[in-house]
Amino acid sequence: MVIVGAGFGGLRCARGLAGAAVDVTLLDQHNYHTFIPLLYQVATAGLEPESIAQPIRRIVRAPNIRFRLAKVSGVDLDRRQVNTDGGDFPYDYLVLAAGSVTNYFGLESVARWTAPLRDLDDAERARDQVLAAFEGAALAADRQARAVLMTIVVAGGGPTGVETAGALAELRRHVLPRDYPELDIGLARIVLLEAGGRLLPGMHARTAAKALETLRRMGVDVRLNCAVAAADGKGVTLSSGERIAAGAVIWVAGLRASPVSEALAAARGAAARLIVRDTLQAPGHPEVYGIGDMAHVGGPDRPPHPMLAPVAIQQGQLAAENILRHAAGRRPQRFKYRDRGTMVTIGRQAAVASVYGLRFSGFIAWVMWLTVHIIWLIGFRNRALVLINWAWNYVTYDRGVRLIRRRRG
Amino acid sequence: MVIVGAGFGGLRCARGLAGAAVDVTLLDQHNYHTFIPLLYQVATAGLEPESIAQPIRRIVRAPNIRFRLAKVSGVDLDRRQVNTDGGDFPYDYLVLAAGSVTNYFGLESVARWTAPLRDLDDAERARDQVLAAFEGAALAADRQARAVLMTIVVAGGGPTGVETAGALAELRRHVLPRDYPELDIGLARIVLLEAGGRLLPGMHARTAAKALETLRRMGVDVRLNCAVAAADGKGVTLSSGERIAAGAVIWVAGLRASPVSEALAAARGAAARLIVRDTLQAPGHPEVYGIGDMAHVGGPDRPPHPMLAPVAIQQGQLAAENILRHAAGRRPQRFKYRDRGTMVTIGRQAAVASVYGLRFSGFIAWVMWLTVHIIWLIGFRNRALVLINWAWNYVTYDRGVRLIRRRRG
Repeated sequence: MVIVGAGFGGLRCARGLAGAAVDVTLLDQHNYHTFIPLLYQVATAGLEPESIAQPIRRIVRAPNIRFRLAKVSGVDLDRRQVNTDGGDFPYDYLVLAAGSVTNYFGLESVARWTAPLRDLDDAERARDQVLAAFEGAALAADRQARAVLMTIVVAGGGPTGVETAGALAELRRHVLPRDYPELDIGLARIVLLEAGGRLLPGMHARTAAKALETLRRMGVDVRLNCAVAAADGKGVTLSSGERIAAGAVIWVAGLRASPVSEALAAARGAAARLIVRDTLQAPGHPEVYGIGDMAHVGGPDRPPHPMLAPVAIQQGQLAAENILRHAAGRRPQRFKYRDRGTMVTIGRQAAVASVYGLRFSGFIAWVMWLTVHIIWLIGFRNRALVLINWAWNYVTYDRGVRLIRRRRG
Repeated sequence: MVIVGAGFGGLRCARGLAGAAVDVTLLDQHNYHTFIPLLYQVATAGLEPESIAQPIRRIVRAPNIRFRLAKVSGVDLDRRQVNTDGGDFPYDYLVLAAGSVTNYFGLESVARWTAPLRDLDDAERARDQVLAAFEGAALAADRQARAVLMTIVVAGGGPTGVETAGALAELRRHVLPRDYPELDIGLARIVLLEAGGRLLPGMHARTAAKALETLRRMGVDVRLNCAVAAADGKGVTLSSGERIAAGAVIWVAGLRASPVSEALAAARGAAARLIVRDTLQAPGHPEVYGIGDMAHVGGPDRPPHPMLAPVAIQQGQLAAENILRHAAGRRPQRFKYRDRGTMVTIGRQAAVASVYGLRFSGFIAWVMWLTVHIIWLIGFRNRALVLINWAWNYVTYDRGVRLIRRRRG
């Protein structure tokens, strides 16, 4: 059998099948798993890219599982094979777990000119652009040009947007004044744009209000009901016609299913997600499972699950179990999401969390966030590196990874 | 005044001028300083690129020094200004410390098809190519194709070539068998090519013999008197006509002065290095200093100093002192290299060193190498990260950073 994608869902599925009487080929276009919830810390110079990535071959070491580095170009459901740049892989069972990509909602100028935050390269490039904007400001001739370059726009008020804006506010407050004594840091602005009427639409309204209040106290210019209509090399234009000139624009306003979903002759639901039954099987193709960000359980009649790691992990586990059940002639089980809660960190000793229906904010939510993310991080070594980075950043108010690896050409 | 380049020499010169009554503009095409002696460990998956790079703005924090991220395109010695992609910088004193680049000796196919090891991006790409070759072998249909992909050629038997070949041999022995249980690791070959008759030409013949013996014991196929004549996407051709098919070729066979040297209307010596007087001043331009890999003290009549960090550091210090002397109306001093020695690590508990004329090898040389490099590494934080990585690698026989960030397209 074949698993496409070694994200949270694909890996859990592979682990669920380790040692079982099935031969598993795990495909991914990268040779590493990315801990996506911490990408924003790479983008804001707090962590090295490598510390949130883990070689897949180290994670999955079972005799019945083999990894292949290959990019999927299509899936032939009738002939039951996956087409890749590394050859074709026939399957008896197939688990589609290719995740999601940035959604630009058809705005081509936005796709061209803003920095997304969906994989490791994205995060590194976003960091490069933010830091290069400040270096550009140091070279700029007049105050007006400096003020523009020192404006960073974050588009999207979901968890990633809130976390990114908060981390940028801390960078501006603690790090940039020391690095750029020649600049008037008062000119630096962090603008968070949200198209809807509130932040964190997936969380409780009071939690969102708390996040808004915290961000504003940290000096972030949060603007609700502001949709981006276009972007260019010098900023964004809102749907109201208003223009915001900026040195860098980070786009975290939406996600859609991986293009692998579109390479299938199968029905798609919200955000191009593959429609699957409650058992995670594709209609008409019980040998094909869709999980995680790529899948929409139940289809258009039901709200899709949020694109979050816990959903993917629980579905990966169930897909593994259902494949073993199917192979044993037993009936597959239905997916039921156990929502343990959501946490969003905003800054130093500041976070919001809702856990098992209880709401937390401030210091306690921040400690919970730290603890959960350290436990989640796969691999002792990465955990140690992240802990050291966080301790260093906390004690020194510094952000160590202020490197510009690639300048925008 | 202006310093071009924030390598070992430029940084030391800037530090030597910190707090003095001169305004210093430090230019570099990167916003970080690279600890070049450890590049080979990035290339062999032992260290994260970030752990051997340090933001220049964090290193240099003196009120009279300002850093500008700018790539130098030319130097107008008559008008006394440096031309960059970030504008022109006039100077009264100029220190040229732009370092060196890979020397392909005019072999275009080699420049096109081999991986150099001179900056952080090079090192990351070399790592990507080595790991991608093994992933390719896992996808290859026949044994012959696998054997080719699992052959890694290192061209150049100087310190970097010896260190790289040794680190690759350890990767093959300890890491790759666990990562690639499906491959016959007996097929994997590390080939070290040296055009001359011995390794480590800058060191004592007995030290070189010791390095040769150690590498061969580790299974490296060391081939002396073998010059590369051409390369393509599938290997190299030697000047003897012999062909070595390989999955990746790392080129560390030579260095030449930075192209900044060629942008000057001034005399050049060995490897295109700028000829400077004993006082490090350019002939006819006492306001221009050349230091480090870029400079050839004394010109064609004298052997050039080796392109090593200690030379650059000592020259950077002297350039700073001579500028202050010149400004005070005093006579500049002559450069005299204090050679404390050279150390080359080969593997686990294996190194060779010559220190103050004494020769060491094996465990004691290895401990000396570790100690010196940790002390040298700039910045507490990086030191901690490198120490953790080294301790992890030593205890587990692992190499943590086995990520392929960019596949060869």
